[in-house]
Amino acid sequence: MDLTPLFKPKSIAVLGASQNGNTIGGRPIRFLKEYGYQGAIYPINPKYKECQGLKCYPNITALPEAVDHLMVVVRAELVADAVLQAAQKGIKSVMIFSSGFAEAGEEGKAMQRRIQDVAREYNMPVCGPNCQGFIDHFNQVTATFTGSLVNGDFNKGPVAFCSQSGAMGYHFYGMAQRMGLGFSYMVSTGNEAVLTTSDFLRYALDDENTGLVASYMEAINDPDQLARCADLAFKKQKPLLVMKVGRSMAGSQAASSHTGSIAGEDRIADTFLEQNGILRVDSVGQFFDLFKVFSNPKRLKGDNVGIVSISGGAGVVMADDCERFGLNVVTFAPETEENLTQKLPYFGSAKNPVDLTAQVLTASEKFYDCLKCVADDPNTDAIVVFIGLLEHMKDILVPPIARLEKETEKPILVTWMACDDPIRKDFKKYGIPLYEEPTRCIYALGQLNRFRKALAHQSERKKQPTVAPDQSLTAKVSQLLDGDSKELDEMTSKELIQAFGIPATKDVLVTDKSEAGEKAAEIGFPVVMKIVSPEVAHKADVGGVILDIKDKDQATQAFESIMQGVSRARPQARLKGVMISPMVRNGLEMLVGIKNDPVFGPVLMAGLGGSYVEIFKDVSTRVLPITAFEAKDMLKELKAYKLLKGARGGAPRDIDALVEVLLKTSTLAMSLSDRISELDINPLLVFEKGKGVMALDALVSVK
Amino acid sequence: MDLTPLFKPKSIAVLGASQNGNTIGGRPIRFLKEYGYQGAIYPINPKYKECQGLKCYPNITALPEAVDHLMVVVRAELVADAVLQAAQKGIKSVMIFSSGFAEAGEEGKAMQRRIQDVAREYNMPVCGPNCQGFIDHFNQVTATFTGSLVNGDFNKGPVAFCSQSGAMGYHFYGMAQRMGLGFSYMVSTGNEAVLTTSDFLRYALDDENTGLVASYMEAINDPDQLARCADLAFKKQKPLLVMKVGRSMAGSQAASSHTGSIAGEDRIADTFLEQNGILRVDSVGQFFDLFKVFSNPKRLKGDNVGIVSISGGAGVVMADDCERFGLNVVTFAPETEENLTQKLPYFGSAKNPVDLTAQVLTASEKFYDCLKCVADDPNTDAIVVFIGLLEHMKDILVPPIARLEKETEKPILVTWMACDDPIRKDFKKYGIPLYEEPTRCIYALGQLNRFRKALAHQSERKKQPTVAPDQSLTAKVSQLLDGDSKELDEMTSKELIQAFGIPATKDVLVTDKSEAGEKAAEIGFPVVMKIVSPEVAHKADVGGVILDIKDKDQATQAFESIMQGVSRARPQARLKGVMISPMVRNGLEMLVGIKNDPVFGPVLMAGLGGSYVEIFKDVSTRVLPITAFEAKDMLKELKAYKLLKGARGGAPRDIDALVEVLLKTSTLAMSLSDRISELDINPLLVFEKGKGVMALDALVSVK
Repeated sequence: MDLTPLFKPKSIAVLGASQNGNTIGGRPIRFLKEYGYQGAIYPINPKYKECQGLKCYPNITALPEAVDHLMVVVRAELVADAVLQAAQKGIKSVMIFSSGFAEAGEEGKAMQRRIQDVAREYNMPVCGPNCQGFIDHFNQVTATFTGSLVNGDFNKGPVAFCSQSGAMGYHFYGMAQRMGLGFSYMVSTGNEAVLTTSDFLRYALDDENTGLVASYMEAINDPDQLARCADLAFKKQKPLLVMKVGRSMAGSQAASSHTGSIAGEDRIADTFLEQNGILRVDSVGQFFDLFKVFSNPKRLKGDNVGIVSISGGAGVVMADDCERFGLNVVTFAPETEENLTQKLPYFGSAKNPVDLTAQVLTASEKFYDCLKCVADDPNTDAIVVFIGLLEHMKDILVPPIARLEKETEKPILVTWMACDDPIRKDFKKYGIPLYEEPTRCIYALGQLNRFRKALAHQSERKKQPTVAPDQSLTAKVSQLLDGDSKELDEMTSKELIQAFGIPATKDVLVTDKSEAGEKAAEIGFPVVMKIVSPEVAHKADVGGVILDIKDKDQATQAFESIMQGVSRARPQARLKGVMISPMVRNGLEMLVGIKNDPVFGPVLMAGLGGSYVEIFKDVSTRVLPITAFEAKDMLKELKAYKLLKGARGGAPRDIDALVEVLLKTSTLAMSLSDRISELDINPLLVFEKGKGVMALDALVSVK
Repeated sequence: MDLTPLFKPKSIAVLGASQNGNTIGGRPIRFLKEYGYQGAIYPINPKYKECQGLKCYPNITALPEAVDHLMVVVRAELVADAVLQAAQKGIKSVMIFSSGFAEAGEEGKAMQRRIQDVAREYNMPVCGPNCQGFIDHFNQVTATFTGSLVNGDFNKGPVAFCSQSGAMGYHFYGMAQRMGLGFSYMVSTGNEAVLTTSDFLRYALDDENTGLVASYMEAINDPDQLARCADLAFKKQKPLLVMKVGRSMAGSQAASSHTGSIAGEDRIADTFLEQNGILRVDSVGQFFDLFKVFSNPKRLKGDNVGIVSISGGAGVVMADDCERFGLNVVTFAPETEENLTQKLPYFGSAKNPVDLTAQVLTASEKFYDCLKCVADDPNTDAIVVFIGLLEHMKDILVPPIARLEKETEKPILVTWMACDDPIRKDFKKYGIPLYEEPTRCIYALGQLNRFRKALAHQSERKKQPTVAPDQSLTAKVSQLLDGDSKELDEMTSKELIQAFGIPATKDVLVTDKSEAGEKAAEIGFPVVMKIVSPEVAHKADVGGVILDIKDKDQATQAFESIMQGVSRARPQARLKGVMISPMVRNGLEMLVGIKNDPVFGPVLMAGLGGSYVEIFKDVSTRVLPITAFEAKDMLKELKAYKLLKGARGGAPRDIDALVEVLLKTSTLAMSLSDRISELDINPLLVFEKGKGVMALDALVSVK
């Protein structure tokens, strides 16, 4: 669907136009005129002949042309008909400000469905309903009624911002505009009946005036589309920033009552964004901080920071913050330290963080020389400058920074505590990111570094094929999943994972005691014996498990003891028999699992198994599909990775075999995503390097 | 030492006074005059007869009176003599701006020591050297040369702020003043040759104009004094906020090169502050946020928040933030929801967070009614209001909030995104904390709640006696610590802890094989046997440990096998014999330890022992002394606490006995703080409830 008529309309009509430039129906016309929109504007309202000095039309049909864009500001009940008329007239795009749709109950949902149907039939882009419109800063299209435009702030620049919440988005936009941050687009998507956040993100990523794309989301409605946006962002090397709210239980409930969307688990949303290289932020302040740093086109090549401060104390604060945000306060090359030592008074510090002392600041040239030293140091990737107060020295201090900004490819970030408006304007003019608190400055630099690492990660990830479903295996195992039970028993679960190539103990079901002795001997002692019954979940609690059985006699006795014990404890249970498995030792107990998320689909889990699972919750997750690179990465995230590598004198484990199981489990999950809701392999024993892995237990839950 | 002459001087002299009101020697005189200081001002400079319109004196001796306060702005070499002259003249307090002392090498250190000697001899309070002075806002004493006063910002209020870094402190102060935050005192302490941060904190805590006390620290120089300040803060129920920098390795190195102080381990500093109820902040922004909320005298009674927002989206953001910062988005009482439902349009939300919608905001009375509903709800402890844009509606929206502020005892915090100066001034006038980003607002409320919990914690803690050293035991075990080894062997270590009442296995040392069999039988099988040798640290690696020995024969063989095995592996080692211990099972493996920190002294540790210690680092710490309440609290902090309580169907463990061991270990550490540097009891087996604990291994390191 082409969004050009929406974003760059040659003509605009407003249905429900008002004479009063302060109402929802009046503001769009007022703003279009005030902010210099170049196309034709057609107010529609049967009450007027003229509206805000423009010729006014009685209805859509009466319009002199099929406009590129129609804004709709009439009562909810009238909207669907208006959209149909617009489509029939040949109007190329529609935006609906009116509310009272999906967010307001069943009747509203039905009206919203009618709008969707028309849009689909006529292939017409529709934004909203229940939205606050959009702004295209490079074409002076102010198709919105937001109060943020009342004050005349209108800075154009590289930021494209898209918000599911109109109010929150425009509060944010208004505040950013007052801070002087420049935008390309600002869009409020409302109920997303037709066009979604992803449609706008894609449009903005393709736009050449846009350097960074950001979105405020209350729900991720289409993870696949969003993942495609992330792909495009990666190709364009543009940062894609997302503030996804509803992290908490209270927040996610509030979000779903606000937008009617399903939340999904926030931890999974986090994983999804991270694995697609989308930078998640957690507050509006973080958005501002990132807009500043990403509005400058310079990017980091590494994580080594050189800090130049007029105060030793600020250097300490920033060094702490560097560590907090994953940056390195690098040791300067010897010649840098020597050079700086010559330039600084004896009570300054030529080591990183550099303490310039006030003496250096008396002349631009001295200050420039010190900055230049640090920028020229082969070890630094970025320069952070700290200044406080000293407003009267603006014209000594700003020009050297501006000069260096032009001369070096390394990002320069400035913190100026207690600065004033003239200073802010200067830095805006030179396009240098300016912060007023040291921690926010270093946070932003940390995120620039996170972007660098995310790009590198994506490029590694995309080198390998992603796991795909295997339909032949789906067919092969299909009958295992038929049946009336919500859970497969252990033997069937293991059969299923073995069909997908995951090693599991070879178990044998026996139904009488002599068979028990024979089969146990065939397997080879020692063995483990467990009751098999669909009604007995916690087998050990009812005497249903016996370990370390060493010979035929013990096996025979064990059979009797298990059958009798369980019969006594659970007289109603159907006992299918006793399962005999080899007793396996000396592996590290890990777990591998699958969970189906209502929003994101199958999610893979890997973690430490055994006794401490519930205590330490050392588990990493990925939304499927993944590549082998990502499977390895999941393991590296774990604290237990140290154990896999062979901590405390232990032997290194067979990590490759474990990665293989993760990939096979992914194939399984994707092949059977319609059939199974959960899979737990726990414990999966991981043996010494080269010796493979073995699933000791598995449990499949059927949909 | 009485600080009144320093903070409220009736007369002030400036040694090194300058005619130029923009220099370090000129600004203090200029500021004192400009900001309305009421006492006499005496410039001292042999070059002038008159200085800035005041009579100028050639030297200290020539002063017409023994002034309350002398500021010193002369070269470092001249300072110590000046301080002596001042003392001899009877001057009651001195502040030294000059730098070039302890921060600048050995010569400077010697000069600083001379100042200390004079101050001690004459019992004269001295601030600095290398400081930027202080401001007493309620008495118009501006004894500083800071650039922050150049702009004329001078808001008085309840904040007392003390900074070890002059520049950082005054940048912070300058920014806070521009935000309209009101101060009682602002002090820069510099090198703290005589007066320390704690001296100033104590003075400010006692001051009735001061409601909250805050400090920026690069080093905690006197933890005992700071703990006493915390006691005083608790008695006065005033919050004590500390930004302690040097968290990171790079930051702590920068701090120590900046101030010359020893850093200590940051994790211990964190523990120390927390256990004394001092609120640590991590950025200057957090300081601002807290100054706002604590400047209002209202305090929280619980953690239940009612949120009233003009935007559904902002409600979601704030609900998320509540969870992040430990607050509860409480469910309203049914009558509150009913009342709100009547007042709101159908597309609003009467549930918490309340979505007012723009309709409610058209009249003050409607807005007030909704706020009042939430404030009157018996379930809420605080009210958070969110507004964005709408500057033109200030006079409709602010008065209802101001009215409620007077009527309710519950704290009201406001976030107004994209607000403007007139709005900021209004909220300042009413003393209502105003934020411009939702997350910072909820952060501040979370800290108000942290303060409530810290007070409750302190009051619990102070009900019980703290652990004290036991000198009789010190004497008793003294000879165990004599010797040339840095580490005691396992048997001696256990003897030491047993002397302090900590249960440990009763071990026996045997030196021949027949004795081994007999003693093992006396102990009772099964037993464990281990080599005893000061030269063998990792006993198991050289065949020096045999477990689960079941009879006399096995014991005899084990003795031979151990002695021969170790001799072969370590021919040089002195083998003292073999230690026999009972084989103990079925306990949860914990660890208890002591570590001596260079700044904070003995620190107690408790955590999960056994295999995963290094992987999960599940350890909590306390600076000694502690009370029994705190020992229990240490355990509650652990993830392993679930295991102690009996997770996964396991039996509950003897937590009381473990607490007892923590207290006894504390007694040991305090009694022997001069003698031992470290103690590790690992594993300490914790048996089922009522069955006690048992140390299986212990290692004492001697100083």
